[in-house]
Amino acid sequence: MIIALKRNVPAEEVLEFTSFLEKQGVKIHRSDGDAQTVLGLVGDTSAIDDEALKAHHLVEKVIRVQEPYKRANRAFHPDDTRIDIALDGGGQKSIGAGCLGIMAGPCSVENREQIIEVAEAVKKAGAHFLRGGAFKPRSSPYSFQGLGNAGLDLLFEAKRATGLPVVTELMDLHHLELFDNVDIIQVGARNMQNFNLLKELGHCRKPILLKRGLASTITELLMAAEYIMSGGNEKVILCERGIRSFDTYTRNTLDLSAIPALKRQSHLPVIVDPSHATGLSWMVPAMSKAAIASGADGVIVEVHNNPEKALCDGEQSITPEVFTSLMASIKKYAEIEGKSL
Amino acid sequence: MIIALKRNVPAEEVLEFTSFLEKQGVKIHRSDGDAQTVLGLVGDTSAIDDEALKAHHLVEKVIRVQEPYKRANRAFHPDDTRIDIALDGGGQKSIGAGCLGIMAGPCSVENREQIIEVAEAVKKAGAHFLRGGAFKPRSSPYSFQGLGNAGLDLLFEAKRATGLPVVTELMDLHHLELFDNVDIIQVGARNMQNFNLLKELGHCRKPILLKRGLASTITELLMAAEYIMSGGNEKVILCERGIRSFDTYTRNTLDLSAIPALKRQSHLPVIVDPSHATGLSWMVPAMSKAAIASGADGVIVEVHNNPEKALCDGEQSITPEVFTSLMASIKKYAEIEGKSL
Amino acid sequence: MIIALKRNVPAEEVLEFTSFLEKQGVKIHRSDGDAQTVLGLVGDTSAIDDEALKAHHLVEKVIRVQEPYKRANRAFHPDDTRIDIALDGGGQKSIGAGCLGIMAGPCSVENREQIIEVAEAVKKAGAHFLRGGAFKPRSSPYSFQGLGNAGLDLLFEAKRATGLPVVTELMDLHHLELFDNVDIIQVGARNMQNFNLLKELGHCRKPILLKRGLASTITELLMAAEYIMSGGNEKVILCERGIRSFDTYTRNTLDLSAIPALKRQSHLPVIVDPSHATGLSWMVPAMSKAAIASGADGVIVEVHNNPEKALCDGEQSITPEVFTSLMASIKKYAEIEGKSL
Amino acid sequence: MIIALKRNVPAEEVLEFTSFLEKQGVKIHRSDGDAQTVLGLVGDTSAIDDEALKAHHLVEKVIRVQEPYKRANRAFHPDDTRIDIALDGGGQKSIGAGCLGIMAGPCSVENREQIIEVAEAVKKAGAHFLRGGAFKPRSSPYSFQGLGNAGLDLLFEAKRATGLPVVTELMDLHHLELFDNVDIIQVGARNMQNFNLLKELGHCRKPILLKRGLASTITELLMAAEYIMSGGNEKVILCERGIRSFDTYTRNTLDLSAIPALKRQSHLPVIVDPSHATGLSWMVPAMSKAAIASGADGVIVEVHNNPEKALCDGEQSITPEVFTSLMASIKKYAEIEGKSL
Repeated sequence: MIIALKRNVPAEEVLEFTSFLEKQGVKIHRSDGDAQTVLGLVGDTSAIDDEALKAHHLVEKVIRVQEPYKRANRAFHPDDTRIDIALDGGGQKSIGAGCLGIMAGPCSVENREQIIEVAEAVKKAGAHFLRGGAFKPRSSPYSFQGLGNAGLDLLFEAKRATGLPVVTELMDLHHLELFDNVDIIQVGARNMQNFNLLKELGHCRKPILLKRGLASTITELLMAAEYIMSGGNEKVILCERGIRSFDTYTRNTLDLSAIPALKRQSHLPVIVDPSHATGLSWMVPAMSKAAIASGADGVIVEVHNNPEKALCDGEQSITPEVFTSLMASIKKYAEIEGKSL
Repeated sequence: MIIALKRNVPAEEVLEFTSFLEKQGVKIHRSDGDAQTVLGLVGDTSAIDDEALKAHHLVEKVIRVQEPYKRANRAFHPDDTRIDIALDGGGQKSIGAGCLGIMAGPCSVENREQIIEVAEAVKKAGAHFLRGGAFKPRSSPYSFQGLGNAGLDLLFEAKRATGLPVVTELMDLHHLELFDNVDIIQVGARNMQNFNLLKELGHCRKPILLKRGLASTITELLMAAEYIMSGGNEKVILCERGIRSFDTYTRNTLDLSAIPALKRQSHLPVIVDPSHATGLSWMVPAMSKAAIASGADGVIVEVHNNPEKALCDGEQSITPEVFTSLMASIKKYAEIEGKSL
Repeated sequence: MIIALKRNVPAEEVLEFTSFLEKQGVKIHRSDGDAQTVLGLVGDTSAIDDEALKAHHLVEKVIRVQEPYKRANRAFHPDDTRIDIALDGGGQKSIGAGCLGIMAGPCSVENREQIIEVAEAVKKAGAHFLRGGAFKPRSSPYSFQGLGNAGLDLLFEAKRATGLPVVTELMDLHHLELFDNVDIIQVGARNMQNFNLLKELGHCRKPILLKRGLASTITELLMAAEYIMSGGNEKVILCERGIRSFDTYTRNTLDLSAIPALKRQSHLPVIVDPSHATGLSWMVPAMSKAAIASGADGVIVEVHNNPEKALCDGEQSITPEVFTSLMASIKKYAEIEGKSL
Repeated sequence: MIIALKRNVPAEEVLEFTSFLEKQGVKIHRSDGDAQTVLGLVGDTSAIDDEALKAHHLVEKVIRVQEPYKRANRAFHPDDTRIDIALDGGGQKSIGAGCLGIMAGPCSVENREQIIEVAEAVKKAGAHFLRGGAFKPRSSPYSFQGLGNAGLDLLFEAKRATGLPVVTELMDLHHLELFDNVDIIQVGARNMQNFNLLKELGHCRKPILLKRGLASTITELLMAAEYIMSGGNEKVILCERGIRSFDTYTRNTLDLSAIPALKRQSHLPVIVDPSHATGLSWMVPAMSKAAIASGADGVIVEVHNNPEKALCDGEQSITPEVFTSLMASIKKYAEIEGKSL
């Protein structure tokens, strides 16, 4: 961390300030110019609150050199993290470190026929995980809120029928006890900074699929991962799912440059959700391929056997036929990029 | 709601589609052009999921004419809502419908001396409510997270000392039982779409200060209010606190045009938080005045007796002296605008 | 400017790099930490290209302490700039340094009756300048493009009839010879970074009303002013007119915190255009008052005698009656803020 | 276009309004509900100003069904447009309709050695066009502004040496006469809505590379293309080069979902500029591949033989070695996607 002090600051005050900083466990390298002093802080600055420092009357600018996250930071963990999910029938499926993971399924679990039919279709096409919502965050209190506990049970039934491990969203810590059979717990974009939820998931042993908030920076996403990891759970999968920009053609703006950015800053796996990002089913195949091309470790895609009758988000769901054709493309892309599927 | 169908759709399919719509409780007015049919839906469309309709293969465009919120909607409640908060010493303080409410206090409660001193200073200057955080949402797990329960107790002590009703943030439903003595419960920007929290607060009898999310539209903020109101609690105070834009001079971009927008769409009181919006204490007085000029029903301002030593957000806190001078300006503005303080 | 070098850089390379920097006319203060060297550049760094430095293989971070603009910078011109516009009948009207300037008139000049009628109405209400477009930047080639030269003549006729100095937009340097009778030349938001236009206006003697681009930062707006000023024309009036954000309730998002930001960074006058910012006539009075409250040196407002029949932007134009009432409010606000009208 | 009128509007006023609309050359289909009338406008609505209609006192909402652009609209030109550029040595290179075009070269032409060396290197690697700036739009008046005319001459020399057609930016219509030897004229992002420039280029016979503005929507980009095309020049290549969002990790946010969006709305070729979009050379290969995967007709990439010493934008330039390796990847991607290189 570098702190540029204001011009012509009295020497005693600088001394007082540097000793205040040293008490926070860092070493200070001081550079005195003609009129301006610059301080370099060496050591672990992740616990130092740069916002608070900016309020100090001696301070002109504060610049972080070291990022404020540690466990999520590639600087301290140079190798890619690989997350392994045990399969019911034995064996495991991995994501990260060269292994692509493909998650597919409906926005929400609607009934037994629907979830079993979609699960079998995506399995046949080559998906590795079944996604499906039981508890749904909806912007209107009058919209379908998901089947809840009954939805989870149907999801587990589809898991038994196909062997596909399941990914579903946790909205409320009270539901955690219902999630024993869930293989990957999803934290939705709107809860990315629900810090109490993140802390609690830090004590959990399951992989967490952490979606980027609509207005969250790369650093904020990694700090949210850090919340989980600092509690002891290092199995975090990051997910880019579109950010909010001025453009309204797509529902959100898929930020694919976040993929190389996250991979450079962190060792964690990163996947992409083109369905929520674009909100347009016809765009999902192109953006899924672009996700793999930009280095993602997988995609999570909405597939519905009858998008027109979907109880939510039908506009963004592709059919099993389109998904099957997309999987064929993804296989070719994986091959070029040297990734295993 | 208006639905433009695609061109040259078979007549039977249109009939089938309109009868599907009518089953959702609306009447259909149909207009057949040369090649295109337009449907007008009359009745209560708030429960109709326009996103789902867009997925239908007959549909080209869907346009909402009526807003999807009802209880928060000025169309159904033409008069301004006034929220009354009982005072410990008897009497009450109102916000909305011509009454301005001024909330002031530190970002977080740090110790007894600090909170009592600030509370007395802002009371003397004319503030109506004491704000102060006990549970703090921080983007880093390594930053000060607030004093928690002990912080609440100190806040209540300051309330007893000054008679000022208190406003503080609820981050977790588990803490609700600790909030008995809290006068206004704040929902932070990051929790604006924590729907389970909103639903639960709908069963509560206290006024809720609902902060706009960083990337939330006017409609989304009102839908979040609708979640609370649909549970039976109509005492919602909306709060504009800055949105995320490309500009980084201020921490967020204070969207003051949201004030007339919210007042036109809704009958609920609207206040402004210039401290979090700008992140710059020297800007707080100007933006507080602009908030009142744009029609806000009050402001919530961070005041700290020693901003440089604040444990969080010192950069955005003004001193009691600056606050006193700001209150003098606000009084003049209130007079011009015909509002009571 | 502060440059943090990468860790463990060979000493000779650092020396080579510092001597390269010194050749650009700055002095270097060097601070060597255990593993990292930080360089402080002292002197005039406005001509140093920080983007280019970031490409250097030794460099980790580059931070500007001094802003890249000089003539527009308050640090070098502590006093507010006041711009005086001579009036045809003798005397002058000033903007800045405590003097408010109010500009009003139609989006575009449509015909003699319209422009004369509006000019007389806004003059009677107390406006100081007549605005009106002759050359109109329209997003569609099929929309009305303004009356061109004939529009300018009508504007000059209205100026003779009322004595109001006129403000109109220059879109093309070829038109400059037609602008002799124009009192303030407007550069539109879309041309804020049309650098050839800015350079040419630097050789002109007239005041320039420089509108902020829709996606321009505070620094970019001041750099655009710097382009004009570096050519010798220091009479620049800055104008906030809304930025593009995710929110679509208003046409753009009026960024009123830009007013105190610009006033702190620069000595130039700053006005606000609430008509283009919001695109909603009913919001113009509230946002005009908020502009004055936030410290603006004036507003530019669209007024049309028949907004429904306006050839462009009728939705955002207020009537002369509303403008008259707004002027009454502005007078009260000016009094409180100690500004002269 | 669909116009929803306000409730309970007098019948005569509706009649008057519909006859006003019919005079603009459209047919009206009217649908009367219980309390609300909806009008459907059939015919060519591209010249109808929907903003103006919104100001009418009878109107509640106006919705465009047909896009406001015609010549750029795929609805009227279902087949992909292919743009052919004649090569000096005979033959031609095409872009669009299945043909990829790769443009590479330095941000600005600096001297003979540099431009010739880079030109030869990118040609060897397989680039089809040489890019290089002679007139540079720079945000600071104190930064290097390009070599101007001398830069053009060097570019032409590199063209003669390698046979590569050249792409360079036109900032000012006065320079057009110098552009005789230029093969593709670039309109920069900051000039995307410089309508006078666009109109003039409509009379030109050369292909135009039109870059998307930083805050421009898909529709605005296509309307800018329409300006050029309505003048008679239909050879427009669209270019996505990043939009401005809240995220600052990359210089801009590369919006790759714009590629399928533009291809669906328009028949024009679309390329991507990952260098300006990200501003980070190490990200250019990943984002170039993602561009091809998302359906782009090519990329334009900054290549410099010595990025550290580049006079502008070195941070975003890749070396000839990296470009050579990128071309190898692009070839594989082109093959999978069935595109010719």
